[in-house]
Amino acid sequence: MLNLVIADTALETIPVKLFQHPSLKKIRNSGKKPTEILLDRTFHHFAILSSNLKDDYKRGRPDILHVILLSALATPLFKNNHLKVFVHTINNQVINVGDNLRIPKSYSRFEGLILDLIKHKKIVSKDGTLLLELKDNQSFSDLIEKHIRPDVIVGLSTNGVLKNFEHVCNELFQFENPCVVIGGFPKGHFSSEIESHLEKKYAISNLKLEAHLVISRLLYEFEKINDS
Amino acid sequence: MLNLVIADTALETIPVKLFQHPSLKKIRNSGKKPTEILLDRTFHHFAILSSNLKDDYKRGRPDILHVILLSALATPLFKNNHLKVFVHTINNQVINVGDNLRIPKSYSRFEGLILDLIKHKKIVSKDGTLLLELKDNQSFSDLIEKHIRPDVIVGLSTNGVLKNFEHVCNELFQFENPCVVIGGFPKGHFSSEIESHLEKKYAISNLKLEAHLVISRLLYEFEKINDS
Repeated sequence: MLNLVIADTALETIPVKLFQHPSLKKIRNSGKKPTEILLDRTFHHFAILSSNLKDDYKRGRPDILHVILLSALATPLFKNNHLKVFVHTINNQVINVGDNLRIPKSYSRFEGLILDLIKHKKIVSKDGTLLLELKDNQSFSDLIEKHIRPDVIVGLSTNGVLKNFEHVCNELFQFENPCVVIGGFPKGHFSSEIESHLEKKYAISNLKLEAHLVISRLLYEFEKINDS
Repeated sequence: MLNLVIADTALETIPVKLFQHPSLKKIRNSGKKPTEILLDRTFHHFAILSSNLKDDYKRGRPDILHVILLSALATPLFKNNHLKVFVHTINNQVINVGDNLRIPKSYSRFEGLILDLIKHKKIVSKDGTLLLELKDNQSFSDLIEKHIRPDVIVGLSTNGVLKNFEHVCNELFQFENPCVVIGGFPKGHFSSEIESHLEKKYAISNLKLEAHLVISRLLYEFEKINDS
């Protein structure tokens, strides 16, 4: 079983201190609460820029998580229950992705699903299967130490040691309960808390590759070893 | 150079005969014209169901194209100009994807880009590079015979002959100007016009895999041969 953690993910609802920004007047007038809207740079760029949010360049990109989840959950590896997926957010929430989740390709459906999850903390299918579960106040350390308890943690980062996918997968495959970590944010690097847990850190290419592409290729190579 | 055609793609603006449907009243009242809105099953499901649109189960899924393009355009193969991408739509429009296009991961930005393309027929970057070009009344045959002129056409379809990615890529790589065709629609099979052009038709798996996953893995294997 491979564990995948999407870490420091740029997923959160609108911070209260942003909500009073003049550029969000229309949203305020709509009657929605800030906790009912995902922070999204496409719509809230000026509010983000002028509000001195910590690490603002890493925030407000729920579309990045959407595309990574689409790539990971479409794999036979996931469908055959050889992959567990966890999302750790920049505000220390953790989302546990259930084995049977099919993630909607439509962004507005995805957004609705995530807002529902943030409100109710759980998404359960009609037949009672847990599809998504969200826990507040869970740090990356909590997730690793209390929940996954992996026997190796490998980070993927542009500032890691250059190795190809086959190498990284062969290494992961030596372990019983390996964990691979990738960033769910647009720019920058892992926070220091995450860095402190990474036993190895690899870069896959000299090119700056999108996280969804890296995950997609890594899972494919892992699947090949797993099937052989 | 590999050519990729996303065929019978479920991309179109709202058909005029749908626009009068009672469920679309709110959209009509917004002042937008039907030509300024992409047909989308997430929002127009009831209107699609009750309007007797031909092949309605294959229509109204622009999110599928979005995810396929994200997968294809993120590859080093595309970034290094070894891949040409064409979109053929269910209404016989053809979109030529420029070599330098970066497709937005945000769906609302993607939607805006496509609506802009439908209106102006071209998207040009600030420095004058052609990013996207749309031609009306271009059949799949026109695209193949007049534009791409490939020396082999391979279709990927669940009802093709079962072969793995390496096999399909090795075969494509034997040719100077190969073309691979995949469907940009949610269900069903290629239209008969497309079928008539396919010299070979392969299935990659017994599992029903998403088109974006198939393309992502195919391009990765092709890249490996190309780089070796």
